[in-house]
Amino acid sequence: MVKVTFLPMEKTVEVPEGIKILDAAVLAGVEVESTCGGRGTCGKCKVLKRPLDCPEKTPEAVLACQEKITEDTLIILMEKREVTDRKINLNSAQEFRLKAGIKKLHLLVPRPSLHNPCPDWERLGQLLPFKEIGFHRKVAASLPQILRQQKHEVTVVLHGNSILAVEPGDTSSRAFGIAVDLGTTTVVAYLVDLIQGKVLAGRATTNPQNIFGADVISRIAYASQGPDRLEELQKKIVAALNWLISQLCAECFVSSEEIYQAVVVGNTTMAHLFLGIDPRYLASFPFTPVFRQEVEVEAGELGLAILSTGKVIVLPNIAGYVGSDTVGVMLAVGVDNLEGVNLIVDIGTNGEIILVGKGKLLTCSTAAGPAFEGGEIKCGMRAAAGAIEGVRIHENVELDIIGNERPQGICGSGLIDAVAEMVRTGIIDSSGSFQLKSDNLEKLPFGVKERVRINNEGGAEFVLVWASDCSIGEDIVITQKDIRKLQLAKGAIAVGIKILLKELGVKVKDIERVFLAGAFGNYIKKESALMLGLLPPVEPEKISAIGNAAGEGAKMALLSPDERFRAKVLARKTRHVELSVHKDFQEEFLKSFSFGNQI
Amino acid sequence: MVKVTFLPMEKTVEVPEGIKILDAAVLAGVEVESTCGGRGTCGKCKVLKRPLDCPEKTPEAVLACQEKITEDTLIILMEKREVTDRKINLNSAQEFRLKAGIKKLHLLVPRPSLHNPCPDWERLGQLLPFKEIGFHRKVAASLPQILRQQKHEVTVVLHGNSILAVEPGDTSSRAFGIAVDLGTTTVVAYLVDLIQGKVLAGRATTNPQNIFGADVISRIAYASQGPDRLEELQKKIVAALNWLISQLCAECFVSSEEIYQAVVVGNTTMAHLFLGIDPRYLASFPFTPVFRQEVEVEAGELGLAILSTGKVIVLPNIAGYVGSDTVGVMLAVGVDNLEGVNLIVDIGTNGEIILVGKGKLLTCSTAAGPAFEGGEIKCGMRAAAGAIEGVRIHENVELDIIGNERPQGICGSGLIDAVAEMVRTGIIDSSGSFQLKSDNLEKLPFGVKERVRINNEGGAEFVLVWASDCSIGEDIVITQKDIRKLQLAKGAIAVGIKILLKELGVKVKDIERVFLAGAFGNYIKKESALMLGLLPPVEPEKISAIGNAAGEGAKMALLSPDERFRAKVLARKTRHVELSVHKDFQEEFLKSFSFGNQI
Repeated sequence: MVKVTFLPMEKTVEVPEGIKILDAAVLAGVEVESTCGGRGTCGKCKVLKRPLDCPEKTPEAVLACQEKITEDTLIILMEKREVTDRKINLNSAQEFRLKAGIKKLHLLVPRPSLHNPCPDWERLGQLLPFKEIGFHRKVAASLPQILRQQKHEVTVVLHGNSILAVEPGDTSSRAFGIAVDLGTTTVVAYLVDLIQGKVLAGRATTNPQNIFGADVISRIAYASQGPDRLEELQKKIVAALNWLISQLCAECFVSSEEIYQAVVVGNTTMAHLFLGIDPRYLASFPFTPVFRQEVEVEAGELGLAILSTGKVIVLPNIAGYVGSDTVGVMLAVGVDNLEGVNLIVDIGTNGEIILVGKGKLLTCSTAAGPAFEGGEIKCGMRAAAGAIEGVRIHENVELDIIGNERPQGICGSGLIDAVAEMVRTGIIDSSGSFQLKSDNLEKLPFGVKERVRINNEGGAEFVLVWASDCSIGEDIVITQKDIRKLQLAKGAIAVGIKILLKELGVKVKDIERVFLAGAFGNYIKKESALMLGLLPPVEPEKISAIGNAAGEGAKMALLSPDERFRAKVLARKTRHVELSVHKDFQEEFLKSFSFGNQI
Repeated sequence: MVKVTFLPMEKTVEVPEGIKILDAAVLAGVEVESTCGGRGTCGKCKVLKRPLDCPEKTPEAVLACQEKITEDTLIILMEKREVTDRKINLNSAQEFRLKAGIKKLHLLVPRPSLHNPCPDWERLGQLLPFKEIGFHRKVAASLPQILRQQKHEVTVVLHGNSILAVEPGDTSSRAFGIAVDLGTTTVVAYLVDLIQGKVLAGRATTNPQNIFGADVISRIAYASQGPDRLEELQKKIVAALNWLISQLCAECFVSSEEIYQAVVVGNTTMAHLFLGIDPRYLASFPFTPVFRQEVEVEAGELGLAILSTGKVIVLPNIAGYVGSDTVGVMLAVGVDNLEGVNLIVDIGTNGEIILVGKGKLLTCSTAAGPAFEGGEIKCGMRAAAGAIEGVRIHENVELDIIGNERPQGICGSGLIDAVAEMVRTGIIDSSGSFQLKSDNLEKLPFGVKERVRINNEGGAEFVLVWASDCSIGEDIVITQKDIRKLQLAKGAIAVGIKILLKELGVKVKDIERVFLAGAFGNYIKKESALMLGLLPPVEPEKISAIGNAAGEGAKMALLSPDERFRAKVLARKTRHVELSVHKDFQEEFLKSFSFGNQI
């Protein structure tokens, strides 16, 4: 046996003495062009040849189909070309570089023989376009059967230099991924075709961890009771995702084994719980997470029902209360390409604020409380059918109801609208107090005036809907207490914006655009938000709602390793401002309660 | 914030403008010597400094305790020194480079604070002596509690650049490993102290897969019936190992969580079964394994009861029937340091032969059958108490019995001894046939002569022990059939040796030494083996028994990454000769049946 090394691909093969270079090339999986069938007439198989360990010798040009190998030899190919296997029809592409950093290779693996008694893993590995392939026990476990199922014709799924799967036959036309937004309340998953680069379907379900508490703090408290509890929460969220995946797969005729990658975003607590990592110190100062970098784990390790060797990527988080969902928003908005100063506000129980400008990226989170989601408001409800989502006060009160049903309660955007109208019409003043003096009330039309009253508890309230007009059997009201809660929520957001502007050293007038992320942003009336001072006083046309930008960011990272990398850079570049200990926080917070602009 | 990069350790840290170099060094975890407490008087903290991106500027020498950082800066330390944490008493060693490629670092991790709100994983990572640490979900999962259990004092267990475990407090004096020899019949495990580099205890147990068949072929057949069966076999062998580990741990007062690494050798089939990899094509020509390289997997993935993130290393195998146990033997014998031509024979049901010389390493396996282990021999038994292990024929028959008990049967070494004596005394001729003619028998002493007889089945036999002298109630005999089986077994080994000698182009006289590996080698009488022609005709003093060399090799690879690497080189360097298709095999095999040397 003699050794033959082919350049430039640096493939070495041991062959019996006396065989032709062309045959050695076949054994090495190296293509040498030849059109005359090896008769030495076409001259296309010309290669350079010299003894292997004699770098001082000048290589001579020979015909690969004629020249025999009699010693250890170096062969230098004239053209840079390498194919995986000659037996495959070269007209069809064999290497499929998919989105998501996944690659599929359709191969015909040589069968084992006395002369090629190589292990299955190595015969396969020799056809791959890189030198060292890591051994993957789970993929190797069933390789022998898969290889032989379709006469050694297989498709290899690669992620970087590691093999995720070997599939029998040619499956190169199919590859899927999942983008996930893990919300505290709602979990959303999108099934994405990685070849066409398009979203096939999306589904949402309630986060089943909600039985352990509606907010992250109660989930953290539950998880802190012991590893079993943490595991329970981890399994719950994975089960919800698996249910969404099964639904999506059924809807799109995709097998879960064809899903090779998942990209997940979520707040920092959700990321910890999803990965089964103890979140307990997120609940107390200084709100220390266990990790913030991007995490990549095998799906099987988490129990996620995609290909078990598939990759689950959790985008990086920034701080204890600014998670990868915010990084997803940054990706979707493209914060690194924005001109001037831009503000992004994701309003929810936890409001995340991003301020970008002067080459910097600042972020903070602020505890607005559940008022914006209708929580802890007397007649509050989620933005579902029957919720009042818009309010106008003129001669009387006009309402917009979700689903055109009889009103049942008031959701976040309706509350903001209603209170903004109450301020505009003077029912309450800018300090948020009801104006009960008769000369104030006298100015109001009768249909409005009669709605202001003192309730049984001695507090003032405003009747939005009379019991006779709604489905709950009693008046839908906005109480003085409700208004105080909204003031706190509005103040939290406003003070966050104000401190970030100060930290960046810019003024409101410098702001080019304001983006409202999250579902809530789609429904909020800009004018009302501006009137209450929830947003800085910019021209309304500068404000735009961008929907579930976090989920969009997850899809982008799923579809492109570049976006994944960009997410890392953005997360690392971001400076997190911890509001609770900021020197200006207390004072600004107290100032920010009044309606009207305090930013 | 400005960036400061320290050379030569290439640590970069972002610091507020205006802080002193010495303080930046502390933040970066870089030690700068200083004995005056930062008063600028000792001059020991002199460093070289230049702006970060101005390689053209000559660095200036400054005192780190005096000089403030006002821009992105490069600091070059005068001495190459880096410590993990300044707060640790530097008099006590902090880094423990253990055998097995494991390292332990005793650290005091900074607590999180407003000014260092870094995640737990990063605050830990900043103290490690390399830049990028991979995120390990399982280690991170319980990190917060472990960090805080002993006031942020921990010991980190490292394997290369990855963290295997974080343990509370200082555990740097304890680290253990397991070396395993997975035999088809017997499983042996050794508990090794990785700090002292010594074996603490060893234990053996029967391979519980034996209920599915005594030989590898029946195990492969069972595993081929489906993934469940394969998994069953995998679990059985792991359960046996876990039992051994629990016994060893109890014996040595070691916790299984303190075992960070396992090195496993075994035949190729056992390696496949242990890793849960489909072995079915090992059973048919060309005996293709799925893998032959070294495999490293996490213990938890296999269910092995050591630290779940610990590494299990299966040394490389060579071919379908030459496994990592043979590589272990090569390590133990040190085949790469031997002078001249050396032969190593591991005699068992499957005989593995290694021939080393002329810078080459050849190996083959040969199916000797169970005769050497007392199998399929009329009165055969394992080498246990009551087995005849030595035989001398003079005026009468003298026996050596294991355990000095009444004889129950004959084991492999006894069989070889007995047949060698029978040949020497002319009871059988060199073709293995009983010499029943009266003139041959007449020459024998009476006490011997009367033992040769024709049995009920019409075949000749030799009575080794009369029924009255043994515990089984009937005569212990060696039949003509037994002798034929021994001839086949002897022939298989001899032809393997002969073909390897031929392949290497050497003669028997060139052999410097013959090593007999395996327990059997310890008991075999050299003279008898030579007389029968089981071994080539060398001087008896050239032959040495080396015991369980495979297990020794596993221990060596466990105790040194260099040996692990050497195993890879040896496995790759070895040329495997497939006897069953060798052109000389048939003819040589037929010739090799006769007793006396045919090599």
